Amino acid sequence: MKLLRYGPRGAEKPGMLDAQGQIRDLSGIIGDLAGEALVHLDRLAALDPLSLPLVEGNPRLGACVGGIGKYLCIGLNYADHAAESGMAVPPEPVLFIKANSAICGPNDPIIIPRGSVKTDWEVELGVVIGKPAKYVSEEEAMDHVAGYCVINDVSERSYQTERAGQWTKGKSCDNFGQTGPWLVTKDEIADPQDLAIWLTVDGETRQNGSTSTMVYGVAHLVSYLSQFFTLHPGDVISTGTPPGVGMGMKPPQYLRPGAVVELGIAGLGVQRQICVADS
Amino acid sequence: MKLLRYGPRGAEKPGMLDAQGQIRDLSGIIGDLAGEALVHLDRLAALDPLSLPLVEGNPRLGACVGGIGKYLCIGLNYADHAAESGMAVPPEPVLFIKANSAICGPNDPIIIPRGSVKTDWEVELGVVIGKPAKYVSEEEAMDHVAGYCVINDVSERSYQTERAGQWTKGKSCDNFGQTGPWLVTKDEIADPQDLAIWLTVDGETRQNGSTSTMVYGVAHLVSYLSQFFTLHPGDVISTGTPPGVGMGMKPPQYLRPGAVVELGIAGLGVQRQICVADS
Repeated sequence: MKLLRYGPRGAEKPGMLDAQGQIRDLSGIIGDLAGEALVHLDRLAALDPLSLPLVEGNPRLGACVGGIGKYLCIGLNYADHAAESGMAVPPEPVLFIKANSAICGPNDPIIIPRGSVKTDWEVELGVVIGKPAKYVSEEEAMDHVAGYCVINDVSERSYQTERAGQWTKGKSCDNFGQTGPWLVTKDEIADPQDLAIWLTVDGETRQNGSTSTMVYGVAHLVSYLSQFFTLHPGDVISTGTPPGVGMGMKPPQYLRPGAVVELGIAGLGVQRQICVADS
Repeated sequence: MKLLRYGPRGAEKPGMLDAQGQIRDLSGIIGDLAGEALVHLDRLAALDPLSLPLVEGNPRLGACVGGIGKYLCIGLNYADHAAESGMAVPPEPVLFIKANSAICGPNDPIIIPRGSVKTDWEVELGVVIGKPAKYVSEEEAMDHVAGYCVINDVSERSYQTERAGQWTKGKSCDNFGQTGPWLVTKDEIADPQDLAIWLTVDGETRQNGSTSTMVYGVAHLVSYLSQFFTLHPGDVISTGTPPGVGMGMKPPQYLRPGAVVELGIAGLGVQRQICVADS
């Protein structure tokens, strides 16, 4: 299934794609694509999409998961991205948290903060938790995954590394977490470690890799994180970015108002964002 | 006003203390002490507490704010705590985010994670945002504050600093964020930079300071953070801990199952936790 949320920000309704790629309204079935509803996706799988109301027009898409509890981000999880960042591959996963207020829809603009000159892109595979997980083994881990999505882990490099300790400030600006278009249930993805992953800026390829070169894979990450805290349904893990970010270019290149960013992962859909200056 | 949330975890109701220190039920007035309700605290101030139903018995208290959006923590914000941590006072505030799943009631147990040997305490002044704030000046900042609370920013030092980059892992374990007992509205606190702040373990004083020695004060922090992202009603800023943490003792001392931690801030109430091993 390809599940989604559509409508104005803060008032999104749940939906699913039918075989023709049209949106069908799920709001008569579940309140939101969030929390407990993610535990029971089998109930949605049993529905005939054609029995659901067709959503007309071309509504805005919201983040494909509502009420995200924690947005867990893994740093330096592709060896060649670590190299372009001038950092070593870490001996175990590096974790930071992106503020929930940064989360937005897949095609919402990238808002360049006032005074920012180092706003950068990072296409990432997102993992959506579907069942509580605490102290789970790598073998059990995938039972706790609902599915996957595309994420743009937008990053302000100056805020991230030049403004006193910890990366949080550079990862949490408003609209720095495009999430979607769809939550693709895991049955549709044969192998999350074999997906093409790419990003372009103004039509020029900047990232073009594969999740096969991730250092710590999805099952390992779910198990690893669950040793520290409970993963809850609706938590999202953003698994790190392949090489090709602006910071790694020679000379570095960053996003400017008007730039168009497109990014996608095989089977998980495409995002498209226009960069705007913050008002 | 002293506002609070009481009842079983995940099903807390809003309440307020009356002049006798008894809990009065606010659930007929607001759905939760969260989000939009925090924008309109003046409506609660207009109520006669004695007109509200008296809550009998001695219910569990939950975190004094519901649906916290982001739990923003400031590191090394007391010069003498930075010194005991072997770190310099940062040139600007250090920010990290504690996972929302760590937030719990003021008297809920401290859960020592499996295998942890460095679980530590940190009493902190919490600031609750009451009005959206983006790019606000230090002069405007206090208009965006609803009130204050006590926080125990429980920290696992090994996870924080010995497990590959970023502090998040050591700050986000389940029940690592006791918050309350009350949200004390700012009208009751004449000067947030002049409050006694203390913590004991098994009756022995470990932290005994004053918010007057904070490096970056409340107004500065609200203004500073609002330059990076929007602060929303129900966001919480934990403003850092004074000296006296276990990590800074010679030799270091950490929490063990059975230990009793008590902590408080003048005018904001007291927390009491028993340490338990994770099951």
